[in-house]
Amino acid sequence: MHNDLVAALDIGGTKIAGALVDGSGRILVRAQRPTPAREDGETVMRAVASVLGELCASPSWLHVTAVGIGSAGPVDAHAGTVSPVNVPGWRGYPLVDRVRAATGGLPVELVGDGVAMTAAEHWQGAARGYDDALCMVVSTGVGGGLVLGGRLHPGPTGNAGHIGHISVDLDGDLCPCGARGCVERIASGPNIARRAIEGGWRPGPDGDGSAAAVAAAAAAGDRVAIASFERAAQALAAGIAATATLVEIRIAVIGGGVAGAGEVLFAPLRRALRDYATLSFVRDLVVAPAMTGTDAGLLGAAAAVSRGPRGEAAATAAG
Amino acid sequence: MHNDLVAALDIGGTKIAGALVDGSGRILVRAQRPTPAREDGETVMRAVASVLGELCASPSWLHVTAVGIGSAGPVDAHAGTVSPVNVPGWRGYPLVDRVRAATGGLPVELVGDGVAMTAAEHWQGAARGYDDALCMVVSTGVGGGLVLGGRLHPGPTGNAGHIGHISVDLDGDLCPCGARGCVERIASGPNIARRAIEGGWRPGPDGDGSAAAVAAAAAAGDRVAIASFERAAQALAAGIAATATLVEIRIAVIGGGVAGAGEVLFAPLRRALRDYATLSFVRDLVVAPAMTGTDAGLLGAAAAVSRGPRGEAAATAAG
Repeated sequence: MHNDLVAALDIGGTKIAGALVDGSGRILVRAQRPTPAREDGETVMRAVASVLGELCASPSWLHVTAVGIGSAGPVDAHAGTVSPVNVPGWRGYPLVDRVRAATGGLPVELVGDGVAMTAAEHWQGAARGYDDALCMVVSTGVGGGLVLGGRLHPGPTGNAGHIGHISVDLDGDLCPCGARGCVERIASGPNIARRAIEGGWRPGPDGDGSAAAVAAAAAAGDRVAIASFERAAQALAAGIAATATLVEIRIAVIGGGVAGAGEVLFAPLRRALRDYATLSFVRDLVVAPAMTGTDAGLLGAAAAVSRGPRGEAAATAAG
Repeated sequence: MHNDLVAALDIGGTKIAGALVDGSGRILVRAQRPTPAREDGETVMRAVASVLGELCASPSWLHVTAVGIGSAGPVDAHAGTVSPVNVPGWRGYPLVDRVRAATGGLPVELVGDGVAMTAAEHWQGAARGYDDALCMVVSTGVGGGLVLGGRLHPGPTGNAGHIGHISVDLDGDLCPCGARGCVERIASGPNIARRAIEGGWRPGPDGDGSAAAVAAAAAAGDRVAIASFERAAQALAAGIAATATLVEIRIAVIGGGVAGAGEVLFAPLRRALRDYATLSFVRDLVVAPAMTGTDAGLLGAAAAVSRGPRGEAAATAAG
């Protein structure tokens, strides 16, 4: 029916957001709780149940036909479990079963947060109309997802598109994941800030040592700040070029806080892509900022359901 | 019909091979010519036509319903053109149109040689039964292809899986493709040999300075030869891990001359994979040698047709 709704959950290390989303991507009802990330698994689950309870209390709940979850990873969509790095109480936690039980047996679809953001950008954002796309979040971490042949490619376990943890510098710095020279180890916000400070850049009187402050300094001409963004752009370019060379994408969409630096990031990124995306079939790759903003996780969780587990538009829910 | 055949062409920089292949992957008729790689485009095409002419002369030609081409890349499957790096006379050469004309209008399917090898390994070789696989050739160059969700993933232009030209060392040596630190620049046979010689290894009395000779020296305990293979294995591991992290593959199949080194390559490769394939969903990746050997290109070109452009088994041709 045309007024079918999806209950969407966006589960991160900081907050648990929920919404009722219609077939055209409009958010009708919202609920949110802080993530009790340091607590035990059942306490975290109570926060999820509380969000669901608030959504259930809406009269619109009657129209909900399914639940979509986008969760911090790794996830295991096949087993229905999640093990978010920043939520130690959840390791192999059976989130899908628990959410199904909490919603009276509704069908539940689980994907990683990078895949969810990608579903959102493909449905409503900068990747709309592209059959082959990489969408990324560059923020505290670096995540992503893929659209291949017109459909979301979550992979068997819902983790595909993890571009933050591919190595572009095989002898590089050790990454918390255990590998070396990962894209995230070079290009995440904290690593941009760390590199600037190591190079001699100092925060202003407000003490703000974030990547956003480094971006402001770079925009004002600070050479160390510019160099730190250039290095991040180089790593992102190598990772994006690798992805394009491996699976043939036409566009790379970049969101997240670091993408908020705008041309401070995008200009050196486009230059570096010319160095790494060299083969004929990847040379025309488009790079664009994300459009779906802070609602990407909710929209994407809804899209993973309403547009099918592999992203195809369902007959009743197409926007 | 059950005796439908495919005419397969495997076009490389050294030879142009052709065969008639049945639905179970048996090769019934063969033809081969050296590639006149330094000649003009029409001369190269005459060698292709000569191979096709020999196949046409077989009584079995009556049963041929389609032509499959696996060609050295880059190719453009969408445009039907090829631009093999080692065949300078062919740049955007309309091979599909020319082969269609030479065969009286039969349907023609074109894929890159890495994609063809992958189709062969998925159909008849080590990737059989795997829904998500990377297949590679490590030889004079490094190429590859992908199976995703049970189907060949050639990508829109037939070039997907080009693992040889992803950068795993963003500050590394310049690659002929224009990028730096590509997998091929570190792990190909000529680069294994070059690195060994730079490290002080010397060919024996027979003057054989090939990667196979380095492999023999490594097997006999030569430390420089071992180190050169270890570096190649490290680059291959970083590239394979990147692929698994990006698209979730379950197996990496490796063929080509360098894979003939056996455990001299595979033992350090498996060790290095533990360093780079760290996330939960890539840790159980299987690495296996290819099984289809020198016929991989022909089998794969046939598979790209008889099992459909995206690899699904056609009703009449399933093995």
